[in-house]
Amino acid sequence: MDVAVLTFDVFGTVVDWRSTIIREATRLGEAKEIERDWTAFADAWRAGYGPSMNRVRSGDLPWTKIDDLHRMILDGLLEEYGLGGLSEAELDDLNRVWHRLDPWPDSVGGLARLKSSYSVVTLSNGNVSLLSDMARHAGLPWDIILSAETAKHYKRDREVYEHAAEMLSEPPERMMMVAAHKGDLEAAREVGFKTAFVRRLLEHGPDGTPDVEREEWMDVYALDFHDLADQMGC
Amino acid sequence: MDVAVLTFDVFGTVVDWRSTIIREATRLGEAKEIERDWTAFADAWRAGYGPSMNRVRSGDLPWTKIDDLHRMILDGLLEEYGLGGLSEAELDDLNRVWHRLDPWPDSVGGLARLKSSYSVVTLSNGNVSLLSDMARHAGLPWDIILSAETAKHYKRDREVYEHAAEMLSEPPERMMMVAAHKGDLEAAREVGFKTAFVRRLLEHGPDGTPDVEREEWMDVYALDFHDLADQMGC
Repeated sequence: MDVAVLTFDVFGTVVDWRSTIIREATRLGEAKEIERDWTAFADAWRAGYGPSMNRVRSGDLPWTKIDDLHRMILDGLLEEYGLGGLSEAELDDLNRVWHRLDPWPDSVGGLARLKSSYSVVTLSNGNVSLLSDMARHAGLPWDIILSAETAKHYKRDREVYEHAAEMLSEPPERMMMVAAHKGDLEAAREVGFKTAFVRRLLEHGPDGTPDVEREEWMDVYALDFHDLADQMGC
Repeated sequence: MDVAVLTFDVFGTVVDWRSTIIREATRLGEAKEIERDWTAFADAWRAGYGPSMNRVRSGDLPWTKIDDLHRMILDGLLEEYGLGGLSEAELDDLNRVWHRLDPWPDSVGGLARLKSSYSVVTLSNGNVSLLSDMARHAGLPWDIILSAETAKHYKRDREVYEHAAEMLSEPPERMMMVAAHKGDLEAAREVGFKTAFVRRLLEHGPDGTPDVEREEWMDVYALDFHDLADQMGC
């Protein structure tokens, strides 16, 4: 397969947003003596993500970075989760938990192997400073940070994938999208990218039921990033 | 000084474009038995850089990445320098010498020190894939690659600096532009950036007469990247 560049979905594919948010919210609750279901809090926060991006996509909101969308969703959860008494600095710090997400156990090692043969590039709806902070926090060795924010379009708009190919000076067929979400791969494939599905069984927790069935159109189906590196000849 | 992010000019400030191009052109001339003044060739190629960007700025050309501007300038030099017989693949490889520029001796070590306390970010007229290839070639540990290409404006348009602050989610006064060229710093300063001048006495060779005089408005005046790291408390 003639591929030069791997572009990665990040939330869920590279990092385990759910466990990190549950852990940090639980700690905050303990420190503030607030008793709530912090797992439900994490899921509710994430549940606002798609709809808030759709408000930008539809023109209901002007261009708004994910940090600000996360904060809008968080503000809507404060009362229910007893967080109304937090200071502005505490709320800002909580909102930045998305900058401190932990990687899946195979992400750093697998990326290091893949980087030896390919350019490894983010292609995330996360904003640039979020992705850069996360790279430092988690030790992710990106060559380039690309984002909905540099494309000024949210995935799964085709402009995001076209932007990545343009920035890499490569034809789409030399690009490969890596994601744990079929819709992201399908949108990349529409633009001409190769596709690698990575199975993340625990993105939505032990009771989650992610769609991880292999599809005929996938160029690679990988169990994790080390399996992806094996299959990509690294 | 309350600075979070250092943005770097690259050609001349981080890498020694002139020595690398003279060396590679000299080798090509030897291999092809072409006798020319390869120092003059390097200077002529670089001399086309500003005027070609101005054609984009003025609207005479649509958005065009530096790789393509470099190639247009090179095409105009082929006859004079006896390079008309090169194949398309050889010309493309020669044009990519800009992706393989060597760093100044203090660049890699100084950047590693600065990265311990600041985000280190390119802010170059070079296109993204050029800067990424160069980072791999030279071992430059960028956190983020930003460019005229991600801003869709060439320096010294103010939009380039505004774009960098926006992508870093920082107010301009927490950004510091690092460059060996006063005009670049002055343009960044207009937008509100702090400024660090780095003295590069040899950018235009031993006979060059660069303007390295210290100016009162500079926040930092550094002899090289290690001196910059010292002064920035790294």
